[in-house]
Amino acid sequence: MNSQDLIRKKRDGARFSVEEINAFISGVCDGSWADYQISALIMAMFIQGLNQTEQNALVKAMLESGEVMDFSDIDAPKADKHSTGGVGDKTSLIIAPLAASLGVAVPMISGRGLGHTGGTLDKLESIEGFNVNLTAAQFKKTLKKCGFALAGQTKKIVPADRKLYALRDATATIESVPLIVASIMSKKLAEGLDALVLDVKTGSGAFMENLWESQALAKALVKTGNDFNVKTEAVITDMSQPLGKFVGNALEVYECVKIMRGEIDEAMQTTLDLTIELTARMLVLTGIAKDVDDASAMCLEKIWDGTALEKFKQNIELQKGNPRICDNPEMLLDKKIKQIPIEAAENGFITEVDTKAVGNAICEIGGGRFKVEDKIDYAVGFSCEKQIGDSTKKGETLGILYCRNQKQADSISGKLRNAYKIGKEKLQNLELIKEII
Amino acid sequence: MNSQDLIRKKRDGARFSVEEINAFISGVCDGSWADYQISALIMAMFIQGLNQTEQNALVKAMLESGEVMDFSDIDAPKADKHSTGGVGDKTSLIIAPLAASLGVAVPMISGRGLGHTGGTLDKLESIEGFNVNLTAAQFKKTLKKCGFALAGQTKKIVPADRKLYALRDATATIESVPLIVASIMSKKLAEGLDALVLDVKTGSGAFMENLWESQALAKALVKTGNDFNVKTEAVITDMSQPLGKFVGNALEVYECVKIMRGEIDEAMQTTLDLTIELTARMLVLTGIAKDVDDASAMCLEKIWDGTALEKFKQNIELQKGNPRICDNPEMLLDKKIKQIPIEAAENGFITEVDTKAVGNAICEIGGGRFKVEDKIDYAVGFSCEKQIGDSTKKGETLGILYCRNQKQADSISGKLRNAYKIGKEKLQNLELIKEII
Repeated sequence: MNSQDLIRKKRDGARFSVEEINAFISGVCDGSWADYQISALIMAMFIQGLNQTEQNALVKAMLESGEVMDFSDIDAPKADKHSTGGVGDKTSLIIAPLAASLGVAVPMISGRGLGHTGGTLDKLESIEGFNVNLTAAQFKKTLKKCGFALAGQTKKIVPADRKLYALRDATATIESVPLIVASIMSKKLAEGLDALVLDVKTGSGAFMENLWESQALAKALVKTGNDFNVKTEAVITDMSQPLGKFVGNALEVYECVKIMRGEIDEAMQTTLDLTIELTARMLVLTGIAKDVDDASAMCLEKIWDGTALEKFKQNIELQKGNPRICDNPEMLLDKKIKQIPIEAAENGFITEVDTKAVGNAICEIGGGRFKVEDKIDYAVGFSCEKQIGDSTKKGETLGILYCRNQKQADSISGKLRNAYKIGKEKLQNLELIKEII
Repeated sequence: MNSQDLIRKKRDGARFSVEEINAFISGVCDGSWADYQISALIMAMFIQGLNQTEQNALVKAMLESGEVMDFSDIDAPKADKHSTGGVGDKTSLIIAPLAASLGVAVPMISGRGLGHTGGTLDKLESIEGFNVNLTAAQFKKTLKKCGFALAGQTKKIVPADRKLYALRDATATIESVPLIVASIMSKKLAEGLDALVLDVKTGSGAFMENLWESQALAKALVKTGNDFNVKTEAVITDMSQPLGKFVGNALEVYECVKIMRGEIDEAMQTTLDLTIELTARMLVLTGIAKDVDDASAMCLEKIWDGTALEKFKQNIELQKGNPRICDNPEMLLDKKIKQIPIEAAENGFITEVDTKAVGNAICEIGGGRFKVEDKIDYAVGFSCEKQIGDSTKKGETLGILYCRNQKQADSISGKLRNAYKIGKEKLQNLELIKEII
């Protein structure tokens, strides 16, 4: 099948057959399609769309471009959680040990941060020695020993996505529902799961800012997962302000350990709430709990009695990290870091947070990466002291910037301050969980 | 201006400013845009379109990416003809000397054949020694001496088009009105013209097979030419069968010389008719003739009295070709070529010719190129003995294949025969000139 003929077909809005989708993905993987041909077809797909038959064929072709993990010798039900990405979104670090402590096997393949959103692998690497580059054998061994494993995608898992994602990033073709679904679901299906819970973010810090876009994405993800015989559910959750207290790699691990130690403060509450909600749904989908209320109670118990933290510690040991951070989370905080309060410029109520601006500001001082090759400073970040609906007075602290020096503070303090909109009327507190799909 | 931001804008159907179009073309020329980014934006432009402001900005940016010729020291009005390409479309070889013999300076930059359509440069190179690779100085000198020059595009003329055209060819983004207009008009405007006549083909051998598409293209070309102060007119002409008698490089030069020698046969009549129509319009646009009827009479006189042939001969000498072909056109015919009649399979009338199939068949035996690097056999080709509306009997000759050997004959005879549809009803002869725009 000629590449120009395939491009022409989608350019003109026609539908691909399964064979045509397969020919495209083969061409991507064997190098017979040039990058400029791939990007032309991706743009045509972006604008003209894919129907469900094309969507499933694309997921299948991408999935089969690489290896699919086989955990059939593990008795426990296999389940994972995937988030579409946000600012301060750290729930994976608690969900994995928590679900594992309740009998779910969690083979969690995660990504790195890019742009304003963070990545689980970067957060884990802020733990001294932690190894996210596991071979398939090491991954399985870890999963068997402690009930979960946290690692990056190997080159053998969905190689087609690696190629396509890099081109999409460079050609402004990320925000397409069928392309996002293909990218996420091909990788999640390669984990050999029984169940999958998707955390689809909506609001100023999400890829999809509007609720209706997030709903469309959630529906497409759930439909695709179920078509491939994975019990799939999506939770649309608020990302109109950073999740929980901290933004920044080591600070987010610190927050998670503090929560698992029961040393939670008010600003961390949404992190815990979302963690419980998502883990509970994994337990229901895998048949371990009968409903979300029961499952939530089981989750809370495993946090308060220290089982989840113990699981996390066991995993850190297996993945060569320093487990003492679980006993002394302050080890995660770099003593050379300066704490600069960001103060409100006027009296009133917090009405809006430009969450993407907060993420980008922290990225600018090294807390994330704009380009794949950027180096990360794990220690920098931000703590959110005020949330939407809170009152504030001029001069009161909205949040605290964790940075290396005054120059960094000068470069982004204004951006952080301006990210908080202060109005005269108190808004209702936002609902964390918007919809279940 | 960030490349992703520009791609995103057109992807979402927004309009570009002049500055944004300039940023794109700069990026194409200075290499700061990767090929895969260029092709993504080209696909977005293809699907979302360009308005007239964007169209003119794109033409101007492409034009200014290279050198513009300056013929202000030539007193004669400067005019050219450009065809959108067809099969057997050889009028340039007569139009240039004919217009020159009537006082028009014709700086004709031409192209090579690709796919089923032929190219003027290839035809000229079938004349022994003929040099189409002129420097700007040689081109101008030739133009001054004999009133016309025939050459390929130098690297300094519209470099942006060279890059864009190669990518469009590989990514199925050729057939877009604004992109075709930008490609054609940037190159034609670089010739420093006063007037331009466009021959927009329609029918089975044209890029745009439907009349309405050809009309849209013609209107856009004319509007753009006039916006840039070049008096521009378009003639929509029939390409539902090969033009005139011959298809094939040397054979087409032969036909032109025969016509200029007054040795015309019936099958060559449409070549002469179209040549006169297009040249006459150049004479009217440049103010040399008062109307098309007068201009046509002037043209016919210069053919019958031998002036046009004399001009052609003078040019061949200046461009290092063998001028004796004008005295003895049979020199152009390779004696080793076999002539194989293609016979009708049934009685009836010719109702349809798949002109693209004829062009592709001749291309297959070396008469054209499918890829830029393919070598051409100038001697092979086809003569059209029957035209749409003619009656035929089973076994009568539809056309004659000029080929090297029986193997070539076997490989394409069937395709040529099948290109001719024979029906029971006699169709009206087709109008050569469909519309003037």
